[in-house]
Amino acid sequence: MSEQDDQFLKAGERIDQLYSQDVRIIQSPEVFSFSLDAVLLADFVMPSQKSANQIIDLCAGNGAISLFLHAKLAGHFTQVELQPRLADMAKRSVALNQLEQRYTVLNLDIKDIFTNLTKDSADIVVCNPPYFTDLPNSKKNPNQYLAIARHELTINLGGVLTAMSGLLKMNGRGYLVHRPDRLAEILQQATKYRLMPKRIRFIHPKPDREANMVLIEFIKDGRPGGIRIVPPLVVSTDENEYTQEVQAMLYGK
Amino acid sequence: MSEQDDQFLKAGERIDQLYSQDVRIIQSPEVFSFSLDAVLLADFVMPSQKSANQIIDLCAGNGAISLFLHAKLAGHFTQVELQPRLADMAKRSVALNQLEQRYTVLNLDIKDIFTNLTKDSADIVVCNPPYFTDLPNSKKNPNQYLAIARHELTINLGGVLTAMSGLLKMNGRGYLVHRPDRLAEILQQATKYRLMPKRIRFIHPKPDREANMVLIEFIKDGRPGGIRIVPPLVVSTDENEYTQEVQAMLYGK
Repeated sequence: MSEQDDQFLKAGERIDQLYSQDVRIIQSPEVFSFSLDAVLLADFVMPSQKSANQIIDLCAGNGAISLFLHAKLAGHFTQVELQPRLADMAKRSVALNQLEQRYTVLNLDIKDIFTNLTKDSADIVVCNPPYFTDLPNSKKNPNQYLAIARHELTINLGGVLTAMSGLLKMNGRGYLVHRPDRLAEILQQATKYRLMPKRIRFIHPKPDREANMVLIEFIKDGRPGGIRIVPPLVVSTDENEYTQEVQAMLYGK
Repeated sequence: MSEQDDQFLKAGERIDQLYSQDVRIIQSPEVFSFSLDAVLLADFVMPSQKSANQIIDLCAGNGAISLFLHAKLAGHFTQVELQPRLADMAKRSVALNQLEQRYTVLNLDIKDIFTNLTKDSADIVVCNPPYFTDLPNSKKNPNQYLAIARHELTINLGGVLTAMSGLLKMNGRGYLVHRPDRLAEILQQATKYRLMPKRIRFIHPKPDREANMVLIEFIKDGRPGGIRIVPPLVVSTDENEYTQEVQAMLYGK
């Protein structure tokens, strides 16, 4: 870590690099660290070099996903994050990568999103939302930063999909990473909010294990039907090594 | 073909054997032949040796799926098939395998099913329905036998799921093979008819190809959520040979 890097960091933070995308992300194990989910979602997004692209990252956390997309997508990114501490990390990560011209970070509750952003204005919306329902008896992380990022305490699936749909232009693309055990609910709610599932990829932790993540591409006001289930991704071999495809996502080819 | 076998056959028919299950099925390329779909669906069914099992096969065709399940499931099978010619083949296949004690074939329109079968009476319902919607401009097989088996001319997805749900006992299991491009519609309609999707397997024709079939297990009145996406099945290698798993389904281990 250089002295130059140090100016970007607060206590307990470090800088991690995603070599494949040549970006550096400010992380904090106590507050928020991106995980493989973010790398997988960014990989799943279809490339677009349209310079007028408006891209919005909901539940942006420390902004990792948008930063991973800096080369794959042209245009402007808006990162929306509820938690001030995380939004602050996201801003400093943008500065660390000298991408201030292309990125805006909004510290904002998704529920108030249309006070700041225009309806039907986005070409692409990505979201890595809290996965777990907020049941009265569900075990939550005692760390409030992490609890909010993982459990539907401040926003639920319906809220996320409402915002995604409201932000997208007609035929705009939405990208979601979530848990496959909620697949029926996700598809049902998305359809209700005019987001037609078009492409799905399941993520299996190992060759013979059930999927533990799902990536979904929606098209706003797309025609119903025609869902494509692309070949699944297996994360690790039976010997606990990343598969070649995941290695390429992390370290480049 | 022995002379003994010959007595079971009508013009244009032949006997095919599924070696892995030690059953023989009367087939006719002009009327109906079981395909890999039937083998895959039978393989996907959870075994049960409960002697009181009531098992119903909807859209039974020549009855292949139920016959493939003769050893995996104890209990009594009822095969329901609309087309008289196919129901007749199914009856003769049962006789050919000397399974008359355990199998009943009903030549019946699913729409009239509750005139013959009791609601909430089945432990297991399997169905390999017509996959393709009956759009005015859709290309159908000029052979009416095959057109009815493949296109939703006489029954559609909603009709199939209504019957499956109506027949099943609470906590009974329904099994469906279908096209993944209709996944959202299938899950949505199933949920509407109290069939909770519990286990899903996607079938990919080759390692790097999109899924072209999906197998779904439902539990009637099951709790929502908790869908398991089990490891996918790849049918053929890049060299056009059946994978080991499919070879085992077809020829035994």
